[in-house]
This record gives sequence, structure tokens and C-alpha cells, in this order.
Amino acid sequence: MEEYEFGIVGLGTMGRNLLLNMADQGFSVLGLDLDPLKATVLAKEVGPQQHVKGVSAVVDFVSALRTPRAILMLVPAGKPVDIAISGMLPHLNEGDIIIDGGNTYFTDTDRRALELGKQKIHFFGMGISGGEKGARYGPSMMPGGDRSAYERLRPVFEAIAAKVDGQPCVTWLGNGSAGHYVKMVHNGIEYGIMQLIAEVYDMLKRGLGLPDEAIQQTFDTWDQQELQSYLIKITADIFKTRDPETGQLLVNMIADRARAKGTGKWTSQNAMDLQVPVPVIDTAVMMRDLSAHKEERTLAAQRFSSVINSEQPANMQQTLERLKSALYAATIITYAQGLSQLQVASKAYMYGIELESVARIWRGGCIIRSQSLELFRSAYARNPELINLLLDEEVASIIAQRQADLRWMVMMAVDKGIPAAASMAALSYFDAYRSAHLPGNLIQAQRDFFGAHQYERIDREGVFHTEWE
Amino acid sequence: MEEYEFGIVGLGTMGRNLLLNMADQGFSVLGLDLDPLKATVLAKEVGPQQHVKGVSAVVDFVSALRTPRAILMLVPAGKPVDIAISGMLPHLNEGDIIIDGGNTYFTDTDRRALELGKQKIHFFGMGISGGEKGARYGPSMMPGGDRSAYERLRPVFEAIAAKVDGQPCVTWLGNGSAGHYVKMVHNGIEYGIMQLIAEVYDMLKRGLGLPDEAIQQTFDTWDQQELQSYLIKITADIFKTRDPETGQLLVNMIADRARAKGTGKWTSQNAMDLQVPVPVIDTAVMMRDLSAHKEERTLAAQRFSSVINSEQPANMQQTLERLKSALYAATIITYAQGLSQLQVASKAYMYGIELESVARIWRGGCIIRSQSLELFRSAYARNPELINLLLDEEVASIIAQRQADLRWMVMMAVDKGIPAAASMAALSYFDAYRSAHLPGNLIQAQRDFFGAHQYERIDREGVFHTEWE
Repeated sequence: MEEYEFGIVGLGTMGRNLLLNMADQGFSVLGLDLDPLKATVLAKEVGPQQHVKGVSAVVDFVSALRTPRAILMLVPAGKPVDIAISGMLPHLNEGDIIIDGGNTYFTDTDRRALELGKQKIHFFGMGISGGEKGARYGPSMMPGGDRSAYERLRPVFEAIAAKVDGQPCVTWLGNGSAGHYVKMVHNGIEYGIMQLIAEVYDMLKRGLGLPDEAIQQTFDTWDQQELQSYLIKITADIFKTRDPETGQLLVNMIADRARAKGTGKWTSQNAMDLQVPVPVIDTAVMMRDLSAHKEERTLAAQRFSSVINSEQPANMQQTLERLKSALYAATIITYAQGLSQLQVASKAYMYGIELESVARIWRGGCIIRSQSLELFRSAYARNPELINLLLDEEVASIIAQRQADLRWMVMMAVDKGIPAAASMAALSYFDAYRSAHLPGNLIQAQRDFFGAHQYERIDREGVFHTEWE
Repeated sequence: MEEYEFGIVGLGTMGRNLLLNMADQGFSVLGLDLDPLKATVLAKEVGPQQHVKGVSAVVDFVSALRTPRAILMLVPAGKPVDIAISGMLPHLNEGDIIIDGGNTYFTDTDRRALELGKQKIHFFGMGISGGEKGARYGPSMMPGGDRSAYERLRPVFEAIAAKVDGQPCVTWLGNGSAGHYVKMVHNGIEYGIMQLIAEVYDMLKRGLGLPDEAIQQTFDTWDQQELQSYLIKITADIFKTRDPETGQLLVNMIADRARAKGTGKWTSQNAMDLQVPVPVIDTAVMMRDLSAHKEERTLAAQRFSSVINSEQPANMQQTLERLKSALYAATIITYAQGLSQLQVASKAYMYGIELESVARIWRGGCIIRSQSLELFRSAYARNPELINLLLDEEVASIIAQRQADLRWMVMMAVDKGIPAAASMAALSYFDAYRSAHLPGNLIQAQRDFFGAHQYERIDREGVFHTEWE
């Protein structure tokens, strides 16, 4: 009987593309999908040298995998994951490995790992970023689970991952749900950066009255410089794509309600639980919610006279330079927030995450890949215990140089009435973070005044209560 | 045997003060506390005419209450509530009413109401605001539960509540956990306003170099004008209180780490679940978290040279006027966010909350009471279905007049490097809310580009996907 090195459950776009990617790298891979069509169509997509098959019966699938089995599930998060696991479980052996490659909330992963661990089955949560094309030609993969069991997976994952400077964009990240947690924060940062880019776009279009073509060229130019990143690149590409029906730029035909699948929200909600400030991510989540209130916004636009002026500045070239610099600074601050959340979460959940590894595997394959990740990687290499990127000397000097541009951009947005919520959140976070003294003493006094919540003093230890007035 | 009209479980500060308040109003009240000292000390605090007793055995307590019993619990949220309930339950009869007067998360209240409902016991969740003094002399109370059962409670609650224009600051608010939900949002708004006041204080002190005495006078003056509110008043009072040990103003001896008990965080987290934008509240929660990172802030302050200048403006009087106006606008925007969350939650959870009632009972007794609540009450009286306060004609005209001042204040904060995070969140929310068109179309295009998440169009119905480039 034939034996396959690797199994994939769920042959939707992501599962199929990962399977084909593995086949290209010379691995024998067996796919399982309850839809027989998806299972059988596989054979037509691979070359004669490739050892690949699709089946639609669980027993056929499990029995044809080399033990200890390595099974990657690409099924929708939630119930389908539990169903897929319980279907396979009776046929598995001790030491087999199941990997959930979906966008699962990390506490679900911990629950499943605990249950499967009782039967000596290794359970991995693995975030995968890069979309359909990434899956096919090289994603960034974020696995977490049992460290020694990872060795069974390593050759396959390192072969199919994106490469940067010859290094694969995958590594064992930590215990338990570390992989899904890192992917969640990755998505939070993605939300933040996308909102920052949207605000600059709003500034260029509504604020400065720049024509679409000039906006396209601006993003194209920025992608060649310090802002070089996947999200800037696709933004430039988006402004090249025309709607075949109307002949307009397609982006101008798209409704401005921004949808969300929830991973950004999870990042914010969990950051609040851990008491880590991630205001750019919070703001990005909030702005997607606000964008959905289209009818209200239209009413409000009628009620409040526009205070926008789209006057062009005397020196447009210089203006664009400063906007670029502001976006770069705000982007770095966003990464800093997300990475500090990972630092705190790693301690709170005993993940054992090394932030240098995270920055390294984010350099390629994933949605938030950018030139600046190498800068962050080297910062964590210099100091693995770095609490916040903004405290790294090199990062700090970049921010120190650019903070005036971010300040200038926010002031321009305020003046023109352009909502630059995330850019403001980046700036006020920076200004608060670099304030040795904040006005929290007043808040503590108020809390003690009305609720007898007590306060701490600057001159000695302990907690105190005062009968005010 | 003696019979009491009302029972209170938990004779800590809040429970004792509410009991004494009821006794003052002529009700006979029985208190229960497992600590015999707290139970017996009561007798010494009341006058000879008052019918009040404390006991420390559950059986003695329950058997001495008039049926259907009305029992208000003032015990810490969480396990203690369940313990108190299960201790009383065997002795209760159908139709009895238990009220949880603590800061309980609303889903816990729904769970308990469901369990107790099976035994025909009515369970109310009731938020109480006003602190110790409020409890003693007139709090604002926010009860939710069975509407007809509320009639048993009404005479007592209306008697002890704060009064505004002769109207008691209590009313039946809605079904299920409506009361605890309204109190949660009350606290979220409280977080937001406290952060806004703290930012103005920071601006006055660090930004404008105003001496403490002038700050005190400023808040005192503001409390006589449109900003008149409890939080402004206690702020003014705080700046009058000296530390007996050092002779300094006490507020200057208080550490700037602002603590939190979690209700603000719940508000933000649930708003994200309901997709309601409440950025001022999010920001206030985040800033308390950030304030806790004192050591990091001190390091960052060394790393980044200060860009603060505390230059005083030529016309200080005018500057203070504009700051007042900015704070007023930002405060209204904060109420608008919280009240819109209530509007959405009431539909989502089928509470049946009337926002006019909420605004009415918040006018007195509670921490966020202010002159402006009468303005909001009348807005909801004009239009009970008002989606957002900013769409009310009268509120809109105030905001339209003052938005330039908020804009000016944010620009000054940016220029001086003062972190005005919540003021910025208020302004950018306003600017986004009054934008009929937001740059969300770009975000939708990006999501479709990398994740095939599809988009909607402006010219026809449906969802669409494009192979970009």
C-alpha cells in the first residue's frame, strides 16, 4: 500500500495550494475532503513526478499516512475543527500530530491541545499568512505546540515557507497556542497598518486633491524606499486596476464599508485583558466598525458643514516626503505596540516566544512583511528582553527624526478635517510613552474621592485613602 | 414576630449606607452580614424611631422579611454573589425578589436570572452609582429585570434615590441584565470623561505652565458654567486639598499610575463585539494601562528629548475659554458614543431600554451627572429612536459651534507634545462620523487583493471578487 509523508484535511483554496506547494517540494501528500469532487480534481493539477492524491473517506486518509502522522487541517475555525478532529481521532495513534492551520482563537487551541494531549496526540495551532498566493508559493507560518514534535514537521514546513536571505519564514514559536496567538497579533498589526495607509490615502485624495494617478505613483515610489512592504505594494497595484465595466479605477467603485473577520478585534480585546496599550490596533478596529454606519455618516455629513479644504500646498514634493515619513513612523509605532503585546502574552501564557524569531519569520511571506522587520529583528537580536521597540537605540533614533513629520501630518489632518484616527493614536501613544509623568495622579485622586479606591504616593510605599474636601 | 419591609445582604460601606438611607425614609430594613460585629453595630447608628436590625444568620434574616421578599445584595461581584444566593435559596418562596447591586458583568446576571427564574424567583441586576455618599444620601440606581416585579421595589427605590426637579434618579430600565449593562456603559463614559479632564489638566500644567492655584480656580469657574458636573466639581475640590504631612497639594503627592476595576474595559470589549465605535472609552482604558508602565515611560523619557514647550499664550483668558469649549465638545461626544452603544445593545439583547429614562436618571446621584444630561434627555424625548446624539439638532449646533475649539486644542497638544489621546479620539470620531465617504474602499480592495475577501460596489448590490493586477 502507498504511504504518504503528509496529510492535509480540507481542500479549499488554502488547503489545495499548500498541498501543491508541498508536492512541488517533492513531498508525497494525501488530501482529504468530504466533497469527492475536490478530492479527485487534485490528480489533474499535479505533474507526473508528483506523489499526490485526494480521498474523501477518513479511514482511507488516516491509514495511508506514514506514522507518526502529520496532518494539517485547513477547515473553517470553530465547530468544523472539532468535527474534523473527532472524525479522525479513533484512527490515530500515540505520537501523531494534528495541526490547525486556521484563524482559531487561541483559547480554543489550548482547549483542544489539552484534550488531545490526554490521548498522547500532539496538537499544534499554526497561523498561516500570505493569502492564496502565499500558500501556493511560500507563506509565512507560525506554529506553536510541543517543541520536540515539531522536528517531524520541520522539513516540510521549511521547504514550503517563503525564504528571506535563504532563511525560511517558519520556526517553532512556542508552547501551546503560541502560534495562533502570534498570528492573531500579526493580524492586529495588519489592521493597524491598513488603517494608517487608508488615512494617508484620504489625506492625499480629499485633503490635498491629488489625482488618482499621482496617488498611484506616490505609493509606487514609496514601495521603493523605507516604506517598502507588501501592503504598500498592493496599494500601488490597486490604483492600477480598472473596472472592466465602467472603465473607472476599480477602487473608486468599491463601497467604503470596511468589513472584518474578527482577528483584529480579538487582538484589541485580549490586549485590554493583559493591560497592554495597543491604541493603533484598537483604532483600526473601531474605524472599521464606524465605516459600517454608512447611513448615519451620510446624515451627519448633511448636519455638519464640511470644514475640509483641499488646498494644495506650495511644495507638493516636500509634502509627500513628510507624509511618507509620518506613515513610516506611525507604522513602526504600530509594530511596537503589537510586539509589546506578544512580549507580555508570552510571559502571561508561558509561551516562551522569542521576538527575534517572530520578526525573522515575518520578513517574508506574510501580509505585514516589510523592510523594517529586519530592523526589528536586529533590535531583538541585540536585546532579547527588549520591552518595547521604541526603547531600542536604532529604532528610537528613527522615531526621533520622524516624530516631527507625524506631528505635522496630524496637525494638517486636524486643520483639514480629515479623520486621521490611527495616526493620532500612534502619535499620542508616543507622546504618552515618553512622558515620565502623566496626569494619572488626578484620575487616582478622583477615584479615591468618589469611590474610596485608594491611591499610591510618590514618596513612599503603600496605599492611602483621604477624606477629601 | 417582627417583620421587615426590605432586606440587605452585605453590610460593608455601600450596604450599610443604603440601609441607613432607607431607614431615614421610614422603611423597616433588616441587614445580613456573616460578620456579627457588622451586624450588631447597626443598632448604634440609627435613631430610636427607626426600625432597623442586623443579623448574621441566613435563616433569621430570610424568615423576618415580609413576602414577597425584597433582598438587595451588596457583596463583591463574582463568586460571593453565587454563594450569597445559594445560601438564601432554600428559604425563599416563589415571587421573592433578589437584587444584585454590585458591578457584575451583565452575562453573569443573565445566567443567574435564568437559573433563579426556574424557581420563580425574580432576579434583578442593578447598577448603583454615587459612591459611599451617594448610597447614604441619594444614589442613581439602574435596575433591570421583570417589569411587574419592579412595582414591589419602586416605593423604596424612589424614596432613597437622588432627586432632580423632584424626579427620582431611578426607574425600571429594561429586561434581563439591562440594569447592569446600563451601569457598565455609565462607567465607560465615566472613564472617558475622566481621561478628557486629565488631558486638559496636563495641558494646563505641563503645556501652559499654569500654577496649581490657577488650575483650581479654572475648574471652579468651569463648574459654574456649561461644564457644570460632578467630575468637574470634585476636580476643583481635589486641588483644594493639602497633604497634612508634606504641606504640598495632595494631588501632587499621588503616583500617576491610574488603576482600574475593569468596567471600562468591559464596555470597550463589548462595544467591539457589537461593532459600535466608542473610541474615547477605548482610549481611556488604554491610557490607564499605559500609565501603569511607569518604568518604561521613565526610560522612554530619557531616550526621547522633550519637545514640550510650556510657553504661555498672549491671551490666557481666551485660551482657557477655548479649552473649556473643547472639553465640553469632547465630553458630549463621549456621552454620544456610550449612549449609541446602549441603543445598539438594547436591540441586540432585547432590553427595551428607553434612552430618555437613562438620561433622566443620570442627571443626579451618579458620577457622570452633569448639566448636559438634561439636554440629552430632551433630545431623546424629541426623538426616542435617535441613533446618535450628534444627529440631534440642538446637540449638533453645540458641536458645530465648538468643534473649532476642539480642533485648536488638539493642534496645541500636538505642537506641545502633550498626549491628548482621548481628545484626539473624540475629534477624529467626529470627523469620521461626518464623512459621508471614508477611505474604507481601499481597505476593502486590499482585503480582496490578499485574501479574496470580496467587496461591495457603490453602483449595485452583491459581493464581488477581482483578480487584481
